[in-house]
Amino acid sequence: MDKVLGIDIGGTSIKVGLFSTEGTLEAVTKIPTGEIVSEAAFAVVTEGLKALLAENGVTPQDVIAIGLDVPGPVDDEGKVGMLPNIELDPDGLQAAIRRTFVNATLAFVNDANAAALGELWQGTAKGANSFVLIAIGTGVGGGVIANGKLVSGAFGAGGEIGHVTVNRDETASCGCGRKGCLEQYASATGIVRSYRRECERLGTEPVALDGPTDTLSVFEAHRAGDEAAHSALAQMCDRLGYAMAQISVVADPQIYLIGGGVGGGFKLYADDLRAAFRRYCLAPSVATRILPASLGNDAAMYGCAYQALLEHDA
Amino acid sequence: MDKVLGIDIGGTSIKVGLFSTEGTLEAVTKIPTGEIVSEAAFAVVTEGLKALLAENGVTPQDVIAIGLDVPGPVDDEGKVGMLPNIELDPDGLQAAIRRTFVNATLAFVNDANAAALGELWQGTAKGANSFVLIAIGTGVGGGVIANGKLVSGAFGAGGEIGHVTVNRDETASCGCGRKGCLEQYASATGIVRSYRRECERLGTEPVALDGPTDTLSVFEAHRAGDEAAHSALAQMCDRLGYAMAQISVVADPQIYLIGGGVGGGFKLYADDLRAAFRRYCLAPSVATRILPASLGNDAAMYGCAYQALLEHDA
Repeated sequence: MDKVLGIDIGGTSIKVGLFSTEGTLEAVTKIPTGEIVSEAAFAVVTEGLKALLAENGVTPQDVIAIGLDVPGPVDDEGKVGMLPNIELDPDGLQAAIRRTFVNATLAFVNDANAAALGELWQGTAKGANSFVLIAIGTGVGGGVIANGKLVSGAFGAGGEIGHVTVNRDETASCGCGRKGCLEQYASATGIVRSYRRECERLGTEPVALDGPTDTLSVFEAHRAGDEAAHSALAQMCDRLGYAMAQISVVADPQIYLIGGGVGGGFKLYADDLRAAFRRYCLAPSVATRILPASLGNDAAMYGCAYQALLEHDA
Repeated sequence: MDKVLGIDIGGTSIKVGLFSTEGTLEAVTKIPTGEIVSEAAFAVVTEGLKALLAENGVTPQDVIAIGLDVPGPVDDEGKVGMLPNIELDPDGLQAAIRRTFVNATLAFVNDANAAALGELWQGTAKGANSFVLIAIGTGVGGGVIANGKLVSGAFGAGGEIGHVTVNRDETASCGCGRKGCLEQYASATGIVRSYRRECERLGTEPVALDGPTDTLSVFEAHRAGDEAAHSALAQMCDRLGYAMAQISVVADPQIYLIGGGVGGGFKLYADDLRAAFRRYCLAPSVATRILPASLGNDAAMYGCAYQALLEHDA
């Protein structure tokens, strides 16, 4: 009864999925954590994992692979780089998990890369030879699949497509220190910022916004006919379509999948996005399909489990 | 005594290499051809191949794989797309070769992609897990290797890095119909054009140029201290370094190899190019190595042979 675990590591909790080796999600749990940097914190994680297994009649010995996705770069060798947004000691956590799960192959995966692998295993792109997942949330992440495999990159920067330069004239800096990155325009933050700017430009009153990443309200405004919201999404599509055209002259995927929180509004802007991509892309790539991702917030949990399973089977 | 053939298809002749399965180039021949679109023309090719084999004591039955590289897109399935620069009927030629070489696996490969595979098999990047070859000649081609495999692309546009947009303000059109492509600046044509412009701007007399792609004379002028030549190469490096930074957020290769005719002058502009890449790249990729390719004009001949061998062994 071989099982696989996928562990999605967030800032205040981890979400864990228990999978069959065929990719069926059999159970999920959320384990509240703080900083994961001490033996006590590692024990909270391992005890939580054991509890999930016990509830489902699985022993730690049954677990053959455990994936962990993290919000930061992981290179071709599986080495975790800088994690600016969470407090995690990956080596310590790995050692603690190894002690409890003696039969398991462990793998760290960048969160957006993991989401791509999830869609490859059980989502829209199941079995696809090549596609690029674009995860649009607070930031813009991505995962590139080529020849059926993840392109994680020699330095863990494979699929960092939030940092394709889309505007060389930008004066404001991106979080990466460079200027004019896709993430500055096509992220939730970027969309809300554009919306406010468009309201100002048009002299209209913005709808009530629940913080700087509340794209849901911008989407609702768009549905209600708000011109500024329409314009903000059109700008997002133009920048994103341009970036996708740059990606296509490198990786030329069969499919783009739009995921993350902003991916939820896909239908609203799908036509604009497809038109923008076609406007900018090289002729042969015009038939590239642009589709919504299907696993939502679970994608990365699926994908890191899959990566660990692949490494176990290799 | 298994053998492999690599056939580099040009506009007026084909160049053929006879290889061992280990990648040793044992003999080369050039076969003059015109348009390769008739049975008579196909026979010129197959007779030329047979003559090369006979001189080297090899029978057509010994040949287990034959690669053909073409100046145009070839997709993930090996299908040849539009070939604007040569007169070739790929299906007809393939059928003729199959009749003569009954044991051989045939593969078409895009020429720049083939050059990348050549460098992977027997060149600077031998055995590398990930790298991008940038072939700078009349145009700018490329080949992306990720996870040790060629990324040819769903529509054959993988590695079409001559068409990364580097200047959104450009008003002149690229051959692809878009504006501001890398190829417009960093190709031999682009370098010579920049040189002439810089001479005008500086009010200096250009050196004698042997046509619109004579970068050798620009390189010589640079060595002799010509300010306009220095400035033209600096501009080339800036555009190329910027494009490479865009490629790195998608594929994040371990190495960039600079090949093609302009690659021959690598030492002249290597420092400028490395500085430009570092100026634009995302922090994790700063350690990417930038090196000259090593197989020169034979790279594509090696690489298409290798691809055919890989498909034979698969």
